[in-house]
Amino acid sequence: MSPSFNCIGLIGKYGDPSIRGILLTLSKYLKQHQFRIMVDESSADLLADEGLEVGSRRQIGESCDLVIVIGGDGSLLNVARSLADYEVPLMGINQGRLGFLADVTPAGMIEKLDEILWGSYLEEDRILLHATTERNGMRINESFALNDVVVHKWNIGRMIEFDTYINGLFVNTLRSDGIIVATPTGSTAYALSSGGPILHPKLNAMVLVPVSPHTMSNRPIVIDGDSHVEIRVKDSNPFHAQVTCDGQINLDLAAGDLIKIRKHDKKIRLIHPANHDHYMVLRAKLQWGGRLDY
Amino acid sequence: MSPSFNCIGLIGKYGDPSIRGILLTLSKYLKQHQFRIMVDESSADLLADEGLEVGSRRQIGESCDLVIVIGGDGSLLNVARSLADYEVPLMGINQGRLGFLADVTPAGMIEKLDEILWGSYLEEDRILLHATTERNGMRINESFALNDVVVHKWNIGRMIEFDTYINGLFVNTLRSDGIIVATPTGSTAYALSSGGPILHPKLNAMVLVPVSPHTMSNRPIVIDGDSHVEIRVKDSNPFHAQVTCDGQINLDLAAGDLIKIRKHDKKIRLIHPANHDHYMVLRAKLQWGGRLDY
Amino acid sequence: MSPSFNCIGLIGKYGDPSIRGILLTLSKYLKQHQFRIMVDESSADLLADEGLEVGSRRQIGESCDLVIVIGGDGSLLNVARSLADYEVPLMGINQGRLGFLADVTPAGMIEKLDEILWGSYLEEDRILLHATTERNGMRINESFALNDVVVHKWNIGRMIEFDTYINGLFVNTLRSDGIIVATPTGSTAYALSSGGPILHPKLNAMVLVPVSPHTMSNRPIVIDGDSHVEIRVKDSNPFHAQVTCDGQINLDLAAGDLIKIRKHDKKIRLIHPANHDHYMVLRAKLQWGGRLDY
Amino acid sequence: MSPSFNCIGLIGKYGDPSIRGILLTLSKYLKQHQFRIMVDESSADLLADEGLEVGSRRQIGESCDLVIVIGGDGSLLNVARSLADYEVPLMGINQGRLGFLADVTPAGMIEKLDEILWGSYLEEDRILLHATTERNGMRINESFALNDVVVHKWNIGRMIEFDTYINGLFVNTLRSDGIIVATPTGSTAYALSSGGPILHPKLNAMVLVPVSPHTMSNRPIVIDGDSHVEIRVKDSNPFHAQVTCDGQINLDLAAGDLIKIRKHDKKIRLIHPANHDHYMVLRAKLQWGGRLDY
Repeated sequence: MSPSFNCIGLIGKYGDPSIRGILLTLSKYLKQHQFRIMVDESSADLLADEGLEVGSRRQIGESCDLVIVIGGDGSLLNVARSLADYEVPLMGINQGRLGFLADVTPAGMIEKLDEILWGSYLEEDRILLHATTERNGMRINESFALNDVVVHKWNIGRMIEFDTYINGLFVNTLRSDGIIVATPTGSTAYALSSGGPILHPKLNAMVLVPVSPHTMSNRPIVIDGDSHVEIRVKDSNPFHAQVTCDGQINLDLAAGDLIKIRKHDKKIRLIHPANHDHYMVLRAKLQWGGRLDY
Repeated sequence: MSPSFNCIGLIGKYGDPSIRGILLTLSKYLKQHQFRIMVDESSADLLADEGLEVGSRRQIGESCDLVIVIGGDGSLLNVARSLADYEVPLMGINQGRLGFLADVTPAGMIEKLDEILWGSYLEEDRILLHATTERNGMRINESFALNDVVVHKWNIGRMIEFDTYINGLFVNTLRSDGIIVATPTGSTAYALSSGGPILHPKLNAMVLVPVSPHTMSNRPIVIDGDSHVEIRVKDSNPFHAQVTCDGQINLDLAAGDLIKIRKHDKKIRLIHPANHDHYMVLRAKLQWGGRLDY
Repeated sequence: MSPSFNCIGLIGKYGDPSIRGILLTLSKYLKQHQFRIMVDESSADLLADEGLEVGSRRQIGESCDLVIVIGGDGSLLNVARSLADYEVPLMGINQGRLGFLADVTPAGMIEKLDEILWGSYLEEDRILLHATTERNGMRINESFALNDVVVHKWNIGRMIEFDTYINGLFVNTLRSDGIIVATPTGSTAYALSSGGPILHPKLNAMVLVPVSPHTMSNRPIVIDGDSHVEIRVKDSNPFHAQVTCDGQINLDLAAGDLIKIRKHDKKIRLIHPANHDHYMVLRAKLQWGGRLDY
Repeated sequence: MSPSFNCIGLIGKYGDPSIRGILLTLSKYLKQHQFRIMVDESSADLLADEGLEVGSRRQIGESCDLVIVIGGDGSLLNVARSLADYEVPLMGINQGRLGFLADVTPAGMIEKLDEILWGSYLEEDRILLHATTERNGMRINESFALNDVVVHKWNIGRMIEFDTYINGLFVNTLRSDGIIVATPTGSTAYALSSGGPILHPKLNAMVLVPVSPHTMSNRPIVIDGDSHVEIRVKDSNPFHAQVTCDGQINLDLAAGDLIKIRKHDKKIRLIHPANHDHYMVLRAKLQWGGRLDY
């Protein structure tokens, strides 16, 4: 019986020496089973004596047919964005704390990996957003988001005002701290803190969640995942707004800037153990067992 | 040029004489243009002298290729459920107050109807839920809902407790006043009052919204429209729960009763004027122009 | 040194034999220290061989200067209402699960009781609501609530509509599933499930929380504890509404019925261990340590 | 009959020439009735030919026994903070749009003023917050807020983490976009956008409202107005937080900074027409007449 994957990429949380043990265990197991291994440069520093093949993210994306990310959901978000164009399957090992995305714990990882590598796994596709910012008709920035694209105020003194369009139709003018455009993956992240609903990962949808909106009647809107969302910053707010992707890439916005958000044409492929249960993760992470008991 | 529809059903809000004028105007216009007309019995009473063909809902469903509902969203919900199996296009004329579904006003109705009958219109499909209640493995009730299926407590003294399953997977045990399973159509109705998000009508999805949940971490969940939802009333609550479809059909629930909710295999076909804009309706109905202005 | 209390009432959760052990331990301790003890009838059944003085709630209220309630918050709510006119201090022992009110656990109860009886304790006053229902100008019902007075719909098919007045001033007409008028004590109960804020127990205030309101702009309102609240059920809803106090006392409401809610002129006196910390209880009960960690 | 006030201060919205007409009408009316008038410097520029006495805010605070603010709620907030120590009564004239604070419209202002100046008015006291920031035990900043003191993140990439204490008791550690400490006046401003309750102006209370909190169980807390609130920015967030008073005064916060918030010992005295009705203002501003009508 031949394995389902041949070349395994290992990408660790950037600059975190505490993952060295996990990396070592993984690389020994993979070597022993004669998989080709490629590690990213940061992880290679932690495994200097192991003589492993080192690759850039691009090389890993081009060569590997499975990438194991060691860290947490944040690391997986980062890797997913950087490998967005390769559609290489990703598997996340967390550092002991269950993640929404990185759902394999170090304790059980070899057993789970054994199953996965020989074909017993669940592949789940997640949509990725692609955000483009235009100024005076010129594209000045573009980036990917697995969780969310957020347009938000840059200081507290004033709210920002912006117009939202969906598929070319005007939705509304909103004054608020900002607006979150989230994928189902991102619906359990910042969007949830701001009052958004949970979207099942399988759903081809996005949710628009206003942050502290100035009107009492504004509510999250869930729309088709193939929609084209456009947010235009209004004239009165020069450089008091920013756009952020997954909370990590910032661009200052000028009055009149237009942010276009669409689903990327390639998907993120997440690999879970065969017994993965999204509702079990929700119950654990959101503490659904808790009761007020009045 | 031949019209897009031939036999037009007219169904008025039950027992409301104030719609007589609208019915008269419509029937005269349709007669003049030589359409076949079939009116329901309640409306026929209002138009006794007009010599119109009268039909039961079933006959209207079987014979007509367009049904005009005069009243409001409530009347349209009622007609949609009763004609669920015919897939006949429905068009709603409201009595002067814009509805989410009945979006043609009496003032402009002849002009709009003229356009629609000769082919200039927007057809929008809406999903319909089908709810089945089982007791001891026997089906004891089934009905349709265009807005929502609600399982709710029957008195205030105690919350109800129930288990929710989606596609056979356990989601959680919830204690609450109830749970709403809403279509996109129903997302702007009771679900919105209970804190649910707005779902675009085009989305193939349902939303589960808890009503006054006993846990602080419970949130609306949006799932694929083809999901199978099951709600099992827990043993400790004999006959203190009910199931309701679109707020109109009630069944008392016993401990252990199982409510199965699925998308009906036939869709509701709504006919709108060609310039229909869902976001315009949202802005008008939800007063999105309003601001706190602090 | 003489104790701070002389006659101790013991009232157990009604009809719950599992509290017998706690009752026995308490009565032995109290006998040993020569306190006068008076037990309610339900508890007396569980302690048949102990030869304890038995009293009705009224007799306990008149004779005792401390009443220990064994059960949980529900039992304490019940006892507080029935002893509303005696202003006798109450102390709650829970059955192992921390309560907002009954904050002494069986494990540490003798040690805590020892401190309390000899003067080391915290007394906290809680306001009590008094609700009167008038029909055609005649008082038809009155009762107390330590948590909340709730006016709510009696079936789901229609919302109820009612007018709210505060100190004679019209507030608004609301269509909703109901309205909760809660004390600070009740702010962590049903009101919290319906989206209300937490009110510190020391605050002389009430909060009005709409349940699934039909308008998007309705919000909880916090008002002075000395306010007079009036809720008038509108004419269109004959016998489709109820009033409930602490979720336990129901009265069907007719169209035009007026519910008057005021602070009772006597307070509930809660006795806590000297190191009682309300925020600690909130953290424990509301699981404030939990994080989403995205 | 002698008037209730003698020296009237006139302070207009800063740098807004559109209020000139209102200023002129007011000053003519006041001159005609032989009141002493003192205008602020910005307004004096608009009334250059009127020969009015000009005063700094301090001089107005010291000399006047009524100050009329022309602009909107924002102008009134500004004047209230700057005159915090004088306890001079303030009356707000809005520019045509009803305010929560500035509730007299230009159309009816002379009639209302006539009543007010001769004793027919409602005086309403509002509490004012005083915020002090300490770094390494040294006071580095202090300011007033009539609406709210907000501690908030300075960029989106990371939430801020802080500990909250009330009267020396630890409440919780929170990760969020920020926290709002609002007066009853501020409860209808930013706090409302972030999900806070409405507090009646008469209530001696503050409300703590988290902004997009990282835990699902966090809720607004209403506490006694005499409470001492302390917020300590956690170590991991160097200079990624700010403190803002009424959205206008910013200070960058360093890790370990402590913000102390208390009620100011002087109150703001608002003068309203005698028929002022707070609930009427709420209904108008929050559009409580609106219904979903499903």
